[in-house]
Amino acid sequence: LSVGVLIVGLAGATANTFVSGALAGSPSERMGGSVLAASGLDPGLFLDESKLTFSGWDVDPRGADEIASAHGILPSAAIKAASESLDAIRALPAYVGGYDTEEARVSEHSRPIEDPQGAIEGVAADIEAFRSEHGLERCIVVLLGPPLRAQPVESGFGDTNSALSSSACYALGALRASCGVIDFTPNVTLEMPEVLEAATAAQMPLAGRDGNTGQSLLKTVLGQMFKIRNLRVRGWYSTNILGNLDGKVLSRPEHRGLKMSDKLGVLEPILGYEDFDHVVDISYYLPRGDDKEAWDNIDFSGWFGTRMTMKVNWLGSDSALAAPLITDLVKHVDHAMRAGLRGHLPHLGLYFKHPLGSPIEPLANSYRTLMDFYTSNDKEQ
Amino acid sequence: LSVGVLIVGLAGATANTFVSGALAGSPSERMGGSVLAASGLDPGLFLDESKLTFSGWDVDPRGADEIASAHGILPSAAIKAASESLDAIRALPAYVGGYDTEEARVSEHSRPIEDPQGAIEGVAADIEAFRSEHGLERCIVVLLGPPLRAQPVESGFGDTNSALSSSACYALGALRASCGVIDFTPNVTLEMPEVLEAATAAQMPLAGRDGNTGQSLLKTVLGQMFKIRNLRVRGWYSTNILGNLDGKVLSRPEHRGLKMSDKLGVLEPILGYEDFDHVVDISYYLPRGDDKEAWDNIDFSGWFGTRMTMKVNWLGSDSALAAPLITDLVKHVDHAMRAGLRGHLPHLGLYFKHPLGSPIEPLANSYRTLMDFYTSNDKEQ
Amino acid sequence: LSVGVLIVGLAGATANTFVSGALAGSPSERMGGSVLAASGLDPGLFLDESKLTFSGWDVDPRGADEIASAHGILPSAAIKAASESLDAIRALPAYVGGYDTEEARVSEHSRPIEDPQGAIEGVAADIEAFRSEHGLERCIVVLLGPPLRAQPVESGFGDTNSALSSSACYALGALRASCGVIDFTPNVTLEMPEVLEAATAAQMPLAGRDGNTGQSLLKTVLGQMFKIRNLRVRGWYSTNILGNLDGKVLSRPEHRGLKMSDKLGVLEPILGYEDFDHVVDISYYLPRGDDKEAWDNIDFSGWFGTRMTMKVNWLGSDSALAAPLITDLVKHVDHAMRAGLRGHLPHLGLYFKHPLGSPIEPLANSYRTLMDFYTSNDKEQ
Amino acid sequence: LSVGVLIVGLAGATANTFVSGALAGSPSERMGGSVLAASGLDPGLFLDESKLTFSGWDVDPRGADEIASAHGILPSAAIKAASESLDAIRALPAYVGGYDTEEARVSEHSRPIEDPQGAIEGVAADIEAFRSEHGLERCIVVLLGPPLRAQPVESGFGDTNSALSSSACYALGALRASCGVIDFTPNVTLEMPEVLEAATAAQMPLAGRDGNTGQSLLKTVLGQMFKIRNLRVRGWYSTNILGNLDGKVLSRPEHRGLKMSDKLGVLEPILGYEDFDHVVDISYYLPRGDDKEAWDNIDFSGWFGTRMTMKVNWLGSDSALAAPLITDLVKHVDHAMRAGLRGHLPHLGLYFKHPLGSPIEPLANSYRTLMDFYTSNDKEQ
Repeated sequence: LSVGVLIVGLAGATANTFVSGALAGSPSERMGGSVLAASGLDPGLFLDESKLTFSGWDVDPRGADEIASAHGILPSAAIKAASESLDAIRALPAYVGGYDTEEARVSEHSRPIEDPQGAIEGVAADIEAFRSEHGLERCIVVLLGPPLRAQPVESGFGDTNSALSSSACYALGALRASCGVIDFTPNVTLEMPEVLEAATAAQMPLAGRDGNTGQSLLKTVLGQMFKIRNLRVRGWYSTNILGNLDGKVLSRPEHRGLKMSDKLGVLEPILGYEDFDHVVDISYYLPRGDDKEAWDNIDFSGWFGTRMTMKVNWLGSDSALAAPLITDLVKHVDHAMRAGLRGHLPHLGLYFKHPLGSPIEPLANSYRTLMDFYTSNDKEQ
Repeated sequence: LSVGVLIVGLAGATANTFVSGALAGSPSERMGGSVLAASGLDPGLFLDESKLTFSGWDVDPRGADEIASAHGILPSAAIKAASESLDAIRALPAYVGGYDTEEARVSEHSRPIEDPQGAIEGVAADIEAFRSEHGLERCIVVLLGPPLRAQPVESGFGDTNSALSSSACYALGALRASCGVIDFTPNVTLEMPEVLEAATAAQMPLAGRDGNTGQSLLKTVLGQMFKIRNLRVRGWYSTNILGNLDGKVLSRPEHRGLKMSDKLGVLEPILGYEDFDHVVDISYYLPRGDDKEAWDNIDFSGWFGTRMTMKVNWLGSDSALAAPLITDLVKHVDHAMRAGLRGHLPHLGLYFKHPLGSPIEPLANSYRTLMDFYTSNDKEQ
Repeated sequence: LSVGVLIVGLAGATANTFVSGALAGSPSERMGGSVLAASGLDPGLFLDESKLTFSGWDVDPRGADEIASAHGILPSAAIKAASESLDAIRALPAYVGGYDTEEARVSEHSRPIEDPQGAIEGVAADIEAFRSEHGLERCIVVLLGPPLRAQPVESGFGDTNSALSSSACYALGALRASCGVIDFTPNVTLEMPEVLEAATAAQMPLAGRDGNTGQSLLKTVLGQMFKIRNLRVRGWYSTNILGNLDGKVLSRPEHRGLKMSDKLGVLEPILGYEDFDHVVDISYYLPRGDDKEAWDNIDFSGWFGTRMTMKVNWLGSDSALAAPLITDLVKHVDHAMRAGLRGHLPHLGLYFKHPLGSPIEPLANSYRTLMDFYTSNDKEQ
Repeated sequence: LSVGVLIVGLAGATANTFVSGALAGSPSERMGGSVLAASGLDPGLFLDESKLTFSGWDVDPRGADEIASAHGILPSAAIKAASESLDAIRALPAYVGGYDTEEARVSEHSRPIEDPQGAIEGVAADIEAFRSEHGLERCIVVLLGPPLRAQPVESGFGDTNSALSSSACYALGALRASCGVIDFTPNVTLEMPEVLEAATAAQMPLAGRDGNTGQSLLKTVLGQMFKIRNLRVRGWYSTNILGNLDGKVLSRPEHRGLKMSDKLGVLEPILGYEDFDHVVDISYYLPRGDDKEAWDNIDFSGWFGTRMTMKVNWLGSDSALAAPLITDLVKHVDHAMRAGLRGHLPHLGLYFKHPLGSPIEPLANSYRTLMDFYTSNDKEQ
């Protein structure tokens, strides 16, 4: 019996890198960037990723091998060797609502959400069909779609559910089909009261939100240094350039709100004060492709208010940073499902910019929280 | 009754910034950059720096106000307001041996070390005279002189002590006069068996070595991030440009050995592996003055060996970073003297590139060690 | 007999640095950053800046010494020594129209433009009064106000002149009073047909627009290098952080349009092609103050399309870079007035991002144009 | 009839990239980075690179395809397509003397220079054999070997020629065989009186020295900007990290002297003054490979001495930058041979850090010199 993983945004660079890596690589190739791989925790506690079976939804119906070749993130030899199994991974038509990107709303490989309850049932039915087709023990849904348009506060998600976003439909459908849910996006989904209630009712775990891959990770690390050393941050300017779909969507003001809010929110809880200038820019810049680049300028002061600065230039592969974290998260959520945990998982704060169920903490602290969870867990068993 | 602080290298930029700051500033101005100030520990545990009385040795006999004006690190208004008390702080002639800089060896305000035992007694006599003149309760000696020439391994510090460096004479003299000793320099002094034995005999604490102010601090912070996230460091290139006396002396190959060794040694214990390229350059560059600048390039790899890089540009005021750490250390060592601790102090690893008595650890860990020391100490009392 | 300089935006950082420097400094202190000072051209060709008398308009009526102290760009000792003459430099109430900033529109030290013709006459009357009070030979008006809101294309500046911006009123008033005009701002003023016609009628020279102080200057220099070496630019990302009034105003989308257009327009004419990604960000970031900082990332390719990148971090003092260029321009325009030149001055392209009357050229070329103008001019005389 | 190119250091990354590119690429792929390709000069003035036949000397006898695959600079598909013709390009045994690297001195595929006259004759014989084998019209020798150990000034290259370096033997042998010579290395060869005399006697042109590929090129560009704008350079710190053979050899103090001297010499002639701090570091850093990276920090001052800084980070492929310049130089020298020019060629200063026969000039100026040479040449014909 194996475990199914259904991904919202299956054709995106991050999802494809994760899936291609799981099917085309060796365990040692997948270790790089994995917190679990370096943790020293007993691998026997966790699902082996060779046991995963993949499906998902997207407006792009191409096979995973074709998409991987287009992205060019993983070595082409590895993709070629696994092309047969990759070619079989093709997205179901996406559920598309009013908060989705315009590209999604005009696509043909989609199912427009007119009645949210219908969409929720459709998602659940998709999952059940996949589960029974492959004889899967458990399923996990991973939200990796592009950032949605910011939802108006007054929308309510009320009686009629008329304003439910597609990601809410996916999450509610997943819970209806008894799946754990991971949200790696900046969208507001897993903290919606309806979703949280449904998770409690379904006795399912939720892990989110907004993967902590690069610049914000650095803030939780450097912020702690400034805090411990009592070097007062006067200003922190961050710019990001990226040329993938994520960058394109984030370049639109109506889609960047949540992401910006997550990025801006990560520093104050670490530093413990608010009176500094925090600016974050995101620009769509084609030559960078999936290699997200960040430049940070930090102004701080010390002894007698002496002004000093630090600048950081981070050149990372967005998808190569995300894929091992998603692999880890699937293992953690699978573990939580087996352990009967439900709702937000407070031990997974390390993985998220905006952790649900736990405070924003320095990396060293959230790492300790993670390790303590499994170590004390071990002892109890 | 107050506490005396005697500084080796009293006229240097770091020592002067520390002393001028203590005499010319307000408590709040001295908080910036102090680990203790941000720690939340009860200030009542520690000496108030207004209780300090200063002296020291140097080849430069000018008053502290004149030197402070020349360095221009602290605000001129503050220096002017305290000029009378600063002018009274003038160095005793320095003890100068064969490992000292050529500038020191040709200076007139000095006492050449011909007989190490005589120098040790001279240091002790200087301290006793200072102690009785000011009626001091305790004295602490702080080593802040420039990097010495690397000592030949075969020198032995043997029967005749003929090869004792000036810093060893200061440390042994300080212990003979029952002082705690802090070594903020990269010199090999407090780990010499003779010094360690003398500290045990004198029941005095030793704190060292090599203040962890900037680039190496970052390595203990970023190194932990790469370790936790399992991003494999392939290479780390660090260059430093600085234009103060420290920079001038470090530009000489025979003086930079120990510093380089400390700088190169800080990364492997954090990462846990050695198979990466670690290069450190230090260049004397006049326009930078005391504003040490560092540029680091880090090559690392993740998922499927994907290559990524991170670059850090750190523009810090060397002395403004060091002064609050020295203030902290004086308080810690004073506390240790009152508590009857002797030899290396394992709770102070956070302050040093090459901590004596404790392993090289990530900042978050060495900070926890520090806090645990005082917190469990409290409970026991 | 001396020459009068009337500045629109007299209290701004750039204007104040220019005026304070002219009154408080020595000729050698004013040489830094001056193209003329390094050119080797006969200083006798040009007005000596000690002959200048200053006035201008602003919503801030404080004396130039108070403003200089607040900005802190020039040495406080120099400001103090000239405080009497600086204190006398106080702005006339500003003419404020519908395209001005909201700060200007609500200020009390202002004259709202209800009837553009009246404002034009008021400007001319202000100039005439200043001219006769000081017995001035010639007057030059320098536009240094903040970027205006972008004017709707359809506004027309038509029959009623109802939509004339304040900068157009200043320029037309200046021409009515027989002044040469310099526009160091990104506003569309000196290229308006009405202004150009008025300049021809008045036989007066116009120099503009948008001072070429930092990042765009670099583009005209590095762009030429890429062009000559046939390294194909694939993308150029530029971000700017600044914390002065200019930064505050430019952070508003409705005020940044022209500036962005000037910044984006400077590269293609140098490179000779358009198929690359050119992105410019401007962010208001308080800790930077007047020290504008720019970070540029350039992607380019060479032999067999090999991808390479170059990154530039520029930390300049915006006003200290602008002041010597404005000093130069006053001398050039004074020379042009004496030589009877009218309309746009094609030899001054070097000074502007968006030169009027000459193409955008590499710095080396526009410098040659400037030198040729005076050298051949000399010969003819 | 075609033209032969014989390369000293045939197996090195630069030489191999040049040769592989000539044989494996299309004309359009070779345009990137070529000054000639962007110049607009009539291609008919120059040799077509498809007419080139290659040979050379090296201690590494492998075929050019194997070496190209190892370096991985050009696309593997292109190398594979031309593998047959590339495989035929194999180095003759190198002539190795006392100034060569230790790697060269212990290699087996070499001919130790015991009698310099014999080596010179051997080089000439190698060339003649190659010329007659391929029926070549003209031959050109290109010096691309690693930096030699600095020659003692007193060595004299005297009566016995006992101290002639290998590069001098190659140059003298080339001239004996009536070849033009290009020196892309920092070695002192083409300015030796013996070589210059031999070139005059042989009526052959010499082009050198030290290819101007990256950091020094930037200095000739940015230096001019600082000069024109009268921004006074106070200090220029440059560091270089590279991981190819060049980097390995340059990390040895005895081999880096000439390179450092060339790098340090490029700035003063552009700026016109010497009183600034110029520091250049070169470090061997494996992860960088052939992708040479440079970081420059420039301190400069302007109006009232205001301090400002600029930082440049250049990430270039050393060989991809050099190959099109070498292609250009072969065409220029071929043109010079046809035109009967002899000795140093003053129109080629643009290509070299340390141009022989012409002053060090800003890029814009040396480019004009180059263009004027061919344009006035045209008119005369």
